[in-house]
Amino acid sequence: MTKARTKITVIGAGSVGVSVAYAALIRGSAAEVALYDIATDKVDAEVLDLAHGTQFTSAAVSGGSDLAVVEGSDVIVVTAGAKQQPGQTRMELSGINARLLETLMPQLVERAPDAVFIIVTNPADVMTVVAQRVSGLEPHRVFGSGTVLDTSRLRWRLAHRANVSTASVHADIVGEHGDTEFPLWSNATIGSVPILDWPADEPFTTEELDRIAIEVRDAAYAVIRGKGATNLAIGVSCARIAEAVLHDERAVLPVATVLDGEYGIHGVALSVPSVVGAAGAVPLAETPMSDHEEALLQASADAIRVAVEELG
Amino acid sequence: MTKARTKITVIGAGSVGVSVAYAALIRGSAAEVALYDIATDKVDAEVLDLAHGTQFTSAAVSGGSDLAVVEGSDVIVVTAGAKQQPGQTRMELSGINARLLETLMPQLVERAPDAVFIIVTNPADVMTVVAQRVSGLEPHRVFGSGTVLDTSRLRWRLAHRANVSTASVHADIVGEHGDTEFPLWSNATIGSVPILDWPADEPFTTEELDRIAIEVRDAAYAVIRGKGATNLAIGVSCARIAEAVLHDERAVLPVATVLDGEYGIHGVALSVPSVVGAAGAVPLAETPMSDHEEALLQASADAIRVAVEELG
Amino acid sequence: MTKARTKITVIGAGSVGVSVAYAALIRGSAAEVALYDIATDKVDAEVLDLAHGTQFTSAAVSGGSDLAVVEGSDVIVVTAGAKQQPGQTRMELSGINARLLETLMPQLVERAPDAVFIIVTNPADVMTVVAQRVSGLEPHRVFGSGTVLDTSRLRWRLAHRANVSTASVHADIVGEHGDTEFPLWSNATIGSVPILDWPADEPFTTEELDRIAIEVRDAAYAVIRGKGATNLAIGVSCARIAEAVLHDERAVLPVATVLDGEYGIHGVALSVPSVVGAAGAVPLAETPMSDHEEALLQASADAIRVAVEELG
Amino acid sequence: MTKARTKITVIGAGSVGVSVAYAALIRGSAAEVALYDIATDKVDAEVLDLAHGTQFTSAAVSGGSDLAVVEGSDVIVVTAGAKQQPGQTRMELSGINARLLETLMPQLVERAPDAVFIIVTNPADVMTVVAQRVSGLEPHRVFGSGTVLDTSRLRWRLAHRANVSTASVHADIVGEHGDTEFPLWSNATIGSVPILDWPADEPFTTEELDRIAIEVRDAAYAVIRGKGATNLAIGVSCARIAEAVLHDERAVLPVATVLDGEYGIHGVALSVPSVVGAAGAVPLAETPMSDHEEALLQASADAIRVAVEELG
Repeated sequence: MTKARTKITVIGAGSVGVSVAYAALIRGSAAEVALYDIATDKVDAEVLDLAHGTQFTSAAVSGGSDLAVVEGSDVIVVTAGAKQQPGQTRMELSGINARLLETLMPQLVERAPDAVFIIVTNPADVMTVVAQRVSGLEPHRVFGSGTVLDTSRLRWRLAHRANVSTASVHADIVGEHGDTEFPLWSNATIGSVPILDWPADEPFTTEELDRIAIEVRDAAYAVIRGKGATNLAIGVSCARIAEAVLHDERAVLPVATVLDGEYGIHGVALSVPSVVGAAGAVPLAETPMSDHEEALLQASADAIRVAVEELG
Repeated sequence: MTKARTKITVIGAGSVGVSVAYAALIRGSAAEVALYDIATDKVDAEVLDLAHGTQFTSAAVSGGSDLAVVEGSDVIVVTAGAKQQPGQTRMELSGINARLLETLMPQLVERAPDAVFIIVTNPADVMTVVAQRVSGLEPHRVFGSGTVLDTSRLRWRLAHRANVSTASVHADIVGEHGDTEFPLWSNATIGSVPILDWPADEPFTTEELDRIAIEVRDAAYAVIRGKGATNLAIGVSCARIAEAVLHDERAVLPVATVLDGEYGIHGVALSVPSVVGAAGAVPLAETPMSDHEEALLQASADAIRVAVEELG
Repeated sequence: MTKARTKITVIGAGSVGVSVAYAALIRGSAAEVALYDIATDKVDAEVLDLAHGTQFTSAAVSGGSDLAVVEGSDVIVVTAGAKQQPGQTRMELSGINARLLETLMPQLVERAPDAVFIIVTNPADVMTVVAQRVSGLEPHRVFGSGTVLDTSRLRWRLAHRANVSTASVHADIVGEHGDTEFPLWSNATIGSVPILDWPADEPFTTEELDRIAIEVRDAAYAVIRGKGATNLAIGVSCARIAEAVLHDERAVLPVATVLDGEYGIHGVALSVPSVVGAAGAVPLAETPMSDHEEALLQASADAIRVAVEELG
Repeated sequence: MTKARTKITVIGAGSVGVSVAYAALIRGSAAEVALYDIATDKVDAEVLDLAHGTQFTSAAVSGGSDLAVVEGSDVIVVTAGAKQQPGQTRMELSGINARLLETLMPQLVERAPDAVFIIVTNPADVMTVVAQRVSGLEPHRVFGSGTVLDTSRLRWRLAHRANVSTASVHADIVGEHGDTEFPLWSNATIGSVPILDWPADEPFTTEELDRIAIEVRDAAYAVIRGKGATNLAIGVSCARIAEAVLHDERAVLPVATVLDGEYGIHGVALSVPSVVGAAGAVPLAETPMSDHEEALLQASADAIRVAVEELG
């Protein structure tokens, strides 16, 4: 009779999926966190390891290799798929993972017809297009985690440089979650100070900002070189995005929805500032950009469009 | 041998002080939250009521009417003083509360020589000047909670109007915590969108922003008319500021430090964006403002200077 | 299409109701916390004061004097009613508050037909019987906050005496939320040590435990003498109970459900260990008690039965 | 001048150490979480991945392969060492890891002379003896995470069986963190009900409890078979223990201190209920046990003593 408790299900018990589940569990992002994977032994062991720590969490854990796991989900975070190898571009993963989503998404929608889907499987923007198409759901119900992670990387980097809290840095990366992404420098602030005006012994210059943008863009490669994969930051980022949906926060976050004319872009998913709440993610109709930034956004859209078209 | 746990002491067991202690306790802002007041029966009852709920908090509570309560404090939040009556301006409280701080501050500094002091007693900016002077501490160690509360009011109001999360609104109120305060509209954004560019069916206009600024400035009076005082929002605001000190966050917050030439202002405390961390609050050397905003800041400083000088 | 965010509504904007709302908001007990009262100016001012602090909370606030406020509630915490005066017994409040609930409960059920109700209005056990009867809902859907607060008081007191964390004390007060309540000493432990075996220079004795039980029973009076009312500990206790419902925790808590033969008691609400989750509160069929404790429970039930019958 | 923010340093950037750091960061266990390892590329990549998510945490991250990382630590969690392989007993790891601690501990103590040390390196009890000896610190300053993890596993298992919240189960595993560990069934309760009295359609029997104890003892092997290692539950367990120290909670937890006559045991570390606070872990002088439980505790001590003596 009463409403069921809130539930996040993570699809894929690889290092990313496990990190999303672990972060969501510790944060108490939902009352129940579930983990699903087809590899029974692996997913059962991960669920057991998660469950063994629940004396110290307010949320509960469930999971396994039976699709019944996803029933009752409010949010489904899709991380399943082959992972990016050192040296491999995100785009090269497309074929394999697209075929996986074509099978998986209809099964998930059947079991959890009211869920909002967050697509993390790489290359995330292309996979968001695929997932939205095969799901038959409205675009705002199926969106990619996009450049929320890249934005967090940028803010940490700028905060370190300016010697302030990350929470005091307001700067977004938009576009592809990958090589053509770029920061919206024109509206970036620290506290309420435009970044180029930030008072410091050595003020920021546009040259330094360009170097930082490249460093952030390539940060995933730096992590992969040292540990073989990235999983921790994406884990907590996805838990955060899921909370925005579950709490109907209407938070403005750079997630990737299949666009329908916004910024003159059609049929391609890429990250722009969007309002994330119970209904999913609704991209802002427009965000002020410099001419240069607008050109970069179109170039990013073109790169994703080519990748989508190559999939056929 | 080991470092003592973190400790916040709240001075004054009136409705504001109790709300600060309650909020800090529930948030777990420090390992220990203490409450001090000279009114023994009142403070003992409040401490008991706080303690009775600690099965459900991670922090512990202590307190009473003996000054030994403040020993070991990392942060002291001073709320003691007569409170603002309906119709009374913040400035009219000055004389009574200044005399109280002249007695109290040296006692507190003696008991907690390493603490950072947050002044909430109204009129907060004038009292910050008094408290800093009589304490003999460096200005950044004794700062007013300033317009952090007013800023939170503004963000909630704008968030409601723009239909987004409060956390996605970046706009600061600066100047006096009172009638001459004003928003720094020139750098206000929602997400990364300048507020006047926020895409909506009915965009913001400067006329509407002016109306909102007045409404926020007068919000305390609206609350006082309905319930006789304001206490809840200031409680959680002060807990938040104390955390920035305790965690050495270096968060950029509009708190009020006695200025020493910043913005051409000397010897007056008023709120400007400041970096808040373990060392206290350091005002930014400069924040880009329009000519109009600069004039308003000087007018706000003049108003406080007059009030300080009237005290003698 | 998607499930609405979780919502707690607090009925009554007195000091207890406001504390419940403030605690729930700061804890993030639900995505939305609402406050309802018939006194428009008062409730609007309290909601405004709560809202002004939401920059620092993850939950959102709503409220007012229109019953539409309660729509969509998952949990409704009823605090409305005349409050206990110094010297007045909880039972003396019955008549006034019973008539209020007879009007109020059907209105609340009509607006939020799926909500779970937590009754805090004093005398809480008698009011729970009244609220359940006039609501027409199953007993487990309408339960009193009972001795959760008294239990928290007991644990804090024992923790202080044993010099351990409150979280390490496991001891429950059961029976009436009032003068006939008593601790279940026979199963009380600190860590996993029975309380009388707790190793200390001065071990606990049954005489000391008896004194502590009396002190805890009378703790509300001590607080009321010093500050005129109790509100802080009940606030955080109710937020905690509401979370157990919203997260479907199935936490074992001493709340008060109208019993239907458990412990041989019929038609009276009093606190016994109960499983609290999405369906409300289900009392345990039996809890091991000493003969003395069983006699005390029956005496407590008799006291409440007399009070219920006096109401007619 | 002001006290530095609280700091936890994790030694070892393997899967356990990274999970401890990730959990502590997300929980906000300390203001700063540091990660140290001699493998520069690995630790730098893990620190970067942790840092990339700090937009969504209140704590900050630092780390690397320079021992300066540990300076200023309040708590140091030692996870460095070869890890347990499938089929390998915890005891077989001893020789390798003991030599590592002999080098490492004096270096850590030199850099953080006031820190409390939590030893996680396996076999944890034997390594606690080694770490305490070579550190020259008092036993309560160097303790093993012990059976806190095993206890969490037991509580989750019992909670699942009794269909209640894990937080409502009070039962401890004591002894070796390994094959000779055992639950203190004589004082185990659910809510305030002794476990064998828990009212259910199918009550617990001693036979079932014995089976559950074996299952929990072997739970690590079950997880290792499926995912090759255990890391998630130990991560959140260690973050929780560190908080008890940092907040000076005086929580009663089954951690492993080198005993000095308690329970008639000398010079061996094994888990018994202990009070964990700012000073470290102080084992309770005595805990009521059945004769059978006492015999099991001595057997567990004997097993660890043999392992310690084999090391020489």
